Amino acid sequence: MKKVSAGIDIGGTNTVFGWVESNGNFLWRGKIKTTDYNDPKKLVKEVSQQLLENLVENEAVGIGIGAPNGNYYNGTVEFAPNLDWPDCVPLKEYFNNYFDMPVIVTNDANATALGEMVYGSAKGVKNFIMVTLGTGLGSGIVINGQVVYGHDGFAGELGHVIVEEGGRPCGCGRRGCLETYASATAISTTAKELTSKEYTSSQVYDAANKGEKWALEAFDFTAKKLGMALANAVAITSPRCIYLFGGLAQSGDLLFKPTKQYLEENLLSIYKNKIQLLPSSLDGSDAAILGASALVWKEII
Amino acid sequence: MKKVSAGIDIGGTNTVFGWVESNGNFLWRGKIKTTDYNDPKKLVKEVSQQLLENLVENEAVGIGIGAPNGNYYNGTVEFAPNLDWPDCVPLKEYFNNYFDMPVIVTNDANATALGEMVYGSAKGVKNFIMVTLGTGLGSGIVINGQVVYGHDGFAGELGHVIVEEGGRPCGCGRRGCLETYASATAISTTAKELTSKEYTSSQVYDAANKGEKWALEAFDFTAKKLGMALANAVAITSPRCIYLFGGLAQSGDLLFKPTKQYLEENLLSIYKNKIQLLPSSLDGSDAAILGASALVWKEII
Repeated sequence: MKKVSAGIDIGGTNTVFGWVESNGNFLWRGKIKTTDYNDPKKLVKEVSQQLLENLVENEAVGIGIGAPNGNYYNGTVEFAPNLDWPDCVPLKEYFNNYFDMPVIVTNDANATALGEMVYGSAKGVKNFIMVTLGTGLGSGIVINGQVVYGHDGFAGELGHVIVEEGGRPCGCGRRGCLETYASATAISTTAKELTSKEYTSSQVYDAANKGEKWALEAFDFTAKKLGMALANAVAITSPRCIYLFGGLAQSGDLLFKPTKQYLEENLLSIYKNKIQLLPSSLDGSDAAILGASALVWKEII
Repeated sequence: MKKVSAGIDIGGTNTVFGWVESNGNFLWRGKIKTTDYNDPKKLVKEVSQQLLENLVENEAVGIGIGAPNGNYYNGTVEFAPNLDWPDCVPLKEYFNNYFDMPVIVTNDANATALGEMVYGSAKGVKNFIMVTLGTGLGSGIVINGQVVYGHDGFAGELGHVIVEEGGRPCGCGRRGCLETYASATAISTTAKELTSKEYTSSQVYDAANKGEKWALEAFDFTAKKLGMALANAVAITSPRCIYLFGGLAQSGDLLFKPTKQYLEENLLSIYKNKIQLLPSSLDGSDAAILGASALVWKEII
């Protein structure tokens, strides 16, 4: 009998989950379509039943959940932009109907930060920023070895730092947020501005890899906005490392080289050449589950 | 015999110090001109001798020092912009020559944040930002009841967040830093841009109080830049309160009202109407000593 925690990642499209040992070893993985369950109670029921059926002889110690706008303090998901759910869903309460053990909720980027800290290359790093570059831009900020939740559980919204007054419209209802300039969606927008044509982010990547000028420009522009915003975040939290995670972060030098350059150019001198900009060491598809399960190992045990 | 800690605040012009009880009661105060001592060793000698002569029968438990660019981790002052000192001054080491007890160094804004937390209206507030508006703009950021020092001891440089690409030149060598738009010095610059005349910050205050349009505009512009930068800082740390401290913060509604308005306008919806913008509750002249002495009570005891 092994001690295991459940890691559950609720995304706009898919919900992935699994039983994970404290060393990061997966015992079982599951996946359902989030969009098949407009009622979050039904999604919780399905996930819970699958988890219970596949626990076998192992001992479950807790449930960790990463979800957009997941609130660590009260175990809810509030106003999640990509989920067609009621305004405030008491996710912890729903899962406690199936599991009589600690259930911990946080947002997906915080979970990714925890995953990197518990299972990845941030082991032992006390101060770092995790930036997740997907449809939007999420962030998890770690200070003194702890994820920063802030007063109300919603700290770490680097994607909604305003980088351009009156800039691009953002899903949050405001303008000029970082995620409208630095994310998979954003680089498509930039490509369209440069070429008047529609490209997906991976088409931009392919074109840049072939040396097409407009695509290289799109990466440079993305990196400039990201690098400057990161330099400002450094002035607030002074991290040792910044990790980039997600599809766009897999663009390698195309993204990292110019981002590092703009970061350094914009840093206050006391921070220059001290900050490592690194790709996340976690495998994309498992990272979400690992990160969520890390919530349990890091915060309970 | 009372237990006391020394609070020492080293400013560009004056160095103030005193013996303080854990309840904030002053037993003795001293003051020298920082500018009379180009050699920091001589300043340390003078301050130490005065402190020792005035300890009387009390028991000293530690020495807390707030200084520009004071580094909490290694007890140094590094590249302090307003002190005509060597690049790296081992202040802790110098004071330990006179005091065989813990000596703790931090920057002046962090000390002010600690003072507010230990003696002021931030008692029990676990997440807040202290902004000091003086010649420059300093900040101390408190998360989970702890001052954020970051990886290298230099976290909390909100004054050097870039708010305007290619904007006003800053003493740090870059352009567009928040402190070039929101500080006592900055409001004079703004007044000059608006009127082509030289005004001190208190002249701008007097004129605004009389309802002069240019002076009200100068406050509005200051508040706009400050409010927007604070909204971005909120997205990173999600504080319960933001305190403003220092000369400019004593402008009352002239500063607080528009700053609150721009802050709210620029906040992500999940933070709106949750953040209190407050004046520091500490008396200006004693706050620096109290904050430095709080270093000892908060971190040692």
